[in-house]
Amino acid sequence: MGHEFHFRDKIPVAILGATGMVGQRFVELLGNHPWFQIVCLAASEKSAGKTYAEAANWLMASPLPTSIASMTLQSCQNLEPNRSFSLVFSSLDAACAGEIEADFVKNGYTVVTNARNHRMNQQVPLLIPEVNSAHLKLLDNQNLFGGNGKIVTNPNCSTIGLCLALKPLQDHFGLESVHATTMQAISGAGYPGVASLDILDNVIPHIMGEEAKMETEPLKILGELVANQIVSNPMKISAQCNRVAVSDGHMINVSVKLKQKPTKQEMIEAFQSFTSIAQELALPLAPKNPIHYFSEDQYPQPKVHRHLDKGMAVSIGRLRECPLFDYKFTLLSHNTIRGAAGGAVLNAELMVRLGYIRW
Amino acid sequence: MGHEFHFRDKIPVAILGATGMVGQRFVELLGNHPWFQIVCLAASEKSAGKTYAEAANWLMASPLPTSIASMTLQSCQNLEPNRSFSLVFSSLDAACAGEIEADFVKNGYTVVTNARNHRMNQQVPLLIPEVNSAHLKLLDNQNLFGGNGKIVTNPNCSTIGLCLALKPLQDHFGLESVHATTMQAISGAGYPGVASLDILDNVIPHIMGEEAKMETEPLKILGELVANQIVSNPMKISAQCNRVAVSDGHMINVSVKLKQKPTKQEMIEAFQSFTSIAQELALPLAPKNPIHYFSEDQYPQPKVHRHLDKGMAVSIGRLRECPLFDYKFTLLSHNTIRGAAGGAVLNAELMVRLGYIRW
Amino acid sequence: MGHEFHFRDKIPVAILGATGMVGQRFVELLGNHPWFQIVCLAASEKSAGKTYAEAANWLMASPLPTSIASMTLQSCQNLEPNRSFSLVFSSLDAACAGEIEADFVKNGYTVVTNARNHRMNQQVPLLIPEVNSAHLKLLDNQNLFGGNGKIVTNPNCSTIGLCLALKPLQDHFGLESVHATTMQAISGAGYPGVASLDILDNVIPHIMGEEAKMETEPLKILGELVANQIVSNPMKISAQCNRVAVSDGHMINVSVKLKQKPTKQEMIEAFQSFTSIAQELALPLAPKNPIHYFSEDQYPQPKVHRHLDKGMAVSIGRLRECPLFDYKFTLLSHNTIRGAAGGAVLNAELMVRLGYIRW
Amino acid sequence: MGHEFHFRDKIPVAILGATGMVGQRFVELLGNHPWFQIVCLAASEKSAGKTYAEAANWLMASPLPTSIASMTLQSCQNLEPNRSFSLVFSSLDAACAGEIEADFVKNGYTVVTNARNHRMNQQVPLLIPEVNSAHLKLLDNQNLFGGNGKIVTNPNCSTIGLCLALKPLQDHFGLESVHATTMQAISGAGYPGVASLDILDNVIPHIMGEEAKMETEPLKILGELVANQIVSNPMKISAQCNRVAVSDGHMINVSVKLKQKPTKQEMIEAFQSFTSIAQELALPLAPKNPIHYFSEDQYPQPKVHRHLDKGMAVSIGRLRECPLFDYKFTLLSHNTIRGAAGGAVLNAELMVRLGYIRW
Repeated sequence: MGHEFHFRDKIPVAILGATGMVGQRFVELLGNHPWFQIVCLAASEKSAGKTYAEAANWLMASPLPTSIASMTLQSCQNLEPNRSFSLVFSSLDAACAGEIEADFVKNGYTVVTNARNHRMNQQVPLLIPEVNSAHLKLLDNQNLFGGNGKIVTNPNCSTIGLCLALKPLQDHFGLESVHATTMQAISGAGYPGVASLDILDNVIPHIMGEEAKMETEPLKILGELVANQIVSNPMKISAQCNRVAVSDGHMINVSVKLKQKPTKQEMIEAFQSFTSIAQELALPLAPKNPIHYFSEDQYPQPKVHRHLDKGMAVSIGRLRECPLFDYKFTLLSHNTIRGAAGGAVLNAELMVRLGYIRW
Repeated sequence: MGHEFHFRDKIPVAILGATGMVGQRFVELLGNHPWFQIVCLAASEKSAGKTYAEAANWLMASPLPTSIASMTLQSCQNLEPNRSFSLVFSSLDAACAGEIEADFVKNGYTVVTNARNHRMNQQVPLLIPEVNSAHLKLLDNQNLFGGNGKIVTNPNCSTIGLCLALKPLQDHFGLESVHATTMQAISGAGYPGVASLDILDNVIPHIMGEEAKMETEPLKILGELVANQIVSNPMKISAQCNRVAVSDGHMINVSVKLKQKPTKQEMIEAFQSFTSIAQELALPLAPKNPIHYFSEDQYPQPKVHRHLDKGMAVSIGRLRECPLFDYKFTLLSHNTIRGAAGGAVLNAELMVRLGYIRW
Repeated sequence: MGHEFHFRDKIPVAILGATGMVGQRFVELLGNHPWFQIVCLAASEKSAGKTYAEAANWLMASPLPTSIASMTLQSCQNLEPNRSFSLVFSSLDAACAGEIEADFVKNGYTVVTNARNHRMNQQVPLLIPEVNSAHLKLLDNQNLFGGNGKIVTNPNCSTIGLCLALKPLQDHFGLESVHATTMQAISGAGYPGVASLDILDNVIPHIMGEEAKMETEPLKILGELVANQIVSNPMKISAQCNRVAVSDGHMINVSVKLKQKPTKQEMIEAFQSFTSIAQELALPLAPKNPIHYFSEDQYPQPKVHRHLDKGMAVSIGRLRECPLFDYKFTLLSHNTIRGAAGGAVLNAELMVRLGYIRW
Repeated sequence: MGHEFHFRDKIPVAILGATGMVGQRFVELLGNHPWFQIVCLAASEKSAGKTYAEAANWLMASPLPTSIASMTLQSCQNLEPNRSFSLVFSSLDAACAGEIEADFVKNGYTVVTNARNHRMNQQVPLLIPEVNSAHLKLLDNQNLFGGNGKIVTNPNCSTIGLCLALKPLQDHFGLESVHATTMQAISGAGYPGVASLDILDNVIPHIMGEEAKMETEPLKILGELVANQIVSNPMKISAQCNRVAVSDGHMINVSVKLKQKPTKQEMIEAFQSFTSIAQELALPLAPKNPIHYFSEDQYPQPKVHRHLDKGMAVSIGRLRECPLFDYKFTLLSHNTIRGAAGGAVLNAELMVRLGYIRW
């Protein structure tokens, strides 16, 4: 099982939008993956023809593997139908992702994407393996863009962390309402992204479109699949999003009202005992524990905990009663690993093990 | 009126805790004040006897006035009863403020303090001139520590900003509940305060004692004076406090539930039309407008707006409806000016004009 | 004299490149200037027609004056020859400054520019009023671009600070060689300029073109005017330039070899006694003392000293003997005030008083 | 050889000053070391008796191993002579290191220390394995503090990086003079160390004692062992040290004058071909390449390259001719790994392989 699950050959994959911040994380995570092998890197027209090393301003802490550095970038819009791969990871900008991804689905590819364009499509799983693996059944009848390919999306970077914390609460106590205030890292805005003059010694109290995503995506993710349709979760969410001078790691101050108010100890147990099919199958990128709970007042912190469990676990602390809701707590997750590329890779790993990706 | 209100001689004052961050703000604000003149600077035993320039690690942006640089520091605990002043500003640490301030009151001094020790004492005004000037009437019967001095406190740095925003809402629409999440500046922790290794590229999700202050102080401040007793405001408050890498200026994400839900435009008008006795009397340090409202999505920001109206105004923006409460908005105030030394000086200015400080 | 030097009417001026970082400093410094009045703001084609408030992402700490906020931006390339002004301040990008400024000179305007394009032209003064006011005589015979206008440039932001420190050393002891290592603020790269992902928790050891400017511009500035030609100073300079996470204020670690090695005390006296025609004429923006010397080991610092004397003075400290050169010291100057817009305004002030600008 | 060099049992070691920044690095590097096993953690009197987890504010990015978290701290001053270990790593403060380390030597222990106290003692190797492994011969006759123990020191954090860059230049071309300007990380000052109010948006142009160390230690390190005495290298060094807002990684701008000026290509080859006994023996913590050379103008950068080769390699870039010296370049090294704990561990590894540590 898990890492013992072996293939004769690795699954060949392409990365669309490979030069951006999330694209670089894809390269980092897939460059040495036990199941996947990068055979195609694609980016915008202007990068096409350059080597990856030339076109990408590599910002990851680990060195760029030489074999990838020398790969020639293709254009996302003119990928030859050479059929050397059938699985595509996408970190395209929303400005072009909708159309390009639809083209790939039309041409029979399986698209695992971080882009937001098709997230709320009723036929498309908005997937977090630990939370709503059942939604993958939507693929059985997914029939989109006039082709026989498939598409699976992962949620917004802040939504993923939030839903991992909400899932055990929903299962054990039922959710009524959620108030979430974020302090988000600059890597979430891509590169070059946030100007240094805007964030040094400053806080920016607005991130375009972010609050709407956080208030709607969890309703789908935590919704139930009934007769192959997702029925939205009826809870209410209010989100306030801020940008702070942190490189990686989104912090969220969360207040929750539950259907049945548990004791603090029951809350902690719900967090600590949380596990899922991703852990059972020991998917390569699955965190050993999806949630790490800290009792120290000053934790979690981005600098200290963002890399826990390969950047795939969320950290929770400061759990205490709330005068207005039932409980409040602080939540941290790595926005470009768990909240983007890592989340997408984990989605693909689950799809492999459940038979949705074949080769 | 106001700046035209002149004295033959300035009022001599002492500053206790003069070398700390808030003490330095007191020196900056009182060093060239039209009504007050610093005649005594006091600090801890170990600084006594040194010049102010030697003992204080001056961190203000404006240069230290030479006349003050050369003043010899006294010890707060052995101030001679020379009666060269009767008004004392205090920015003492809570560890020693309680006792020392009580001694000054016992000995007949008027103490205007930023320390938290006596804030919740039922006989002590917890004063913000724009919000609860009526509470100064507590002084008429204040009888504390076995002396005939008087003491007035100002609230916690985060509370002051919050109450300035809440006051017009309370007056126009009535407050039911308030949810406040802060992103607070490092200057709030004094000097040396927060270690750079703890805050560079990081967020600290906890500030000792801060949430309790924010959840209780506003109830007294927005309470009513009935038969010379303050009846606490019955609203409920939940606060979550975080430290971020900002030098000055506390940001607060606020959600409010009101007794009568107004339109957004009515909210804006309540903020923009807010004024008070401090503005009517044109107190020297009073902001021309206590609240500046911004309609741009990306405002307010600490770096851009903390110095508005001499650092004495609060800035509000991002007003929008809240799915859980009625409205949510972002609030900024300067924590060591409006939220500490400037707030105390404004308190003293009001006390002068209302006859509570004589000389 | 000086501030007592009055005009019946202020001199009308235009600002080219008014929306950028240096352009905003021009607006801040000229918006309330005793001698100059902004009558025209110009920027790129795409900003033309918008109000200044719409087009500029105002980043200065002081609020944007309303009268300027509502001014309509012109295009730098299609300014009507309406002759409502004859003095032009330029903070244009080097990419377009050369041609546009030449056009203005051709059409008879006086151009005072921060752009680098014409700095090394032998007929153009590269002016710092405290250092080489004599070079203004070049204007008497300046005959450029086929017109009868005039053009005066100010040096690169790092060069200005360096030359202010070198001038008294040159005068008293003679300069042989200078080794300069900079730690430069992010505002020097304009807006959006440096990406936050590149500078948070980082140092960038390269600034395009900066070292070449620092190694050549001082030779012209400290050169002598002989027969209306500037003879370059023969000293040698080596510069190393780095970008650090500071908002404003360039630090330079300087080592100097002098023709006659003075005592440390003589060095200090040379710095402290330094004054010039700009101080004698009490030009409105001239610092009272061009150089502030600090004996404390930890000074100067950008955060503490960049605003000294309206941001127009340089700060020097840590003077000590150098095992390789004669002395080494640390130098600070405000890069967008003294090093750019403020330097240009001071140039124009000197030109007014010396009769090079008439109206 | 190297990692294939196996022991029946690991060597038991103690760490003195185990709770500080460098002490934590020792714990991180030795916690899972193939040759060494931590059997004793010691710190100040006030930490003695607490578990390591209680006493240390763990700031490393990797999680604290449970087995170490639960170890009980001993007092450095009352370590029982239980002889369960004979090798001691020290990261004590200079205030107490001199005496405590002398006591250990007196009692027959082998002390491998990062403290500065005994660095310049003529009988004590100031060791960098890649640079001066021959100096270990001093141990043959080392006779200090009236005991039969031995002591080996590693240089100051900035010195180590500098000497690794200078060594191949010395060997190939001969060194005449070196000018070094540093931009040093905050972790170099320990914890709590630099106050955030002092370094956010700032540069501090002074680090106590640092310049003297950089100007003297390399002369010993690069000196020759003649008749069991170290003859200092006669080159001259000038250092200027600054603190910047970087968490880890010291940058140095270096200018060098050589006895024979090579071509730029010869310089690069000298850097890139540099290797040593540490690489030949494949010591566990030895970097594969001590020097990484970058031709990209914007490299090296602390955030990007500090972790190269486990944080044990230095990075060099921006090599170019210098108008005053022969060449200038930029150098980066990790100050608490290569420059402190990692350097000391590598020293001990070399001592093991050369027979200076037995058990």
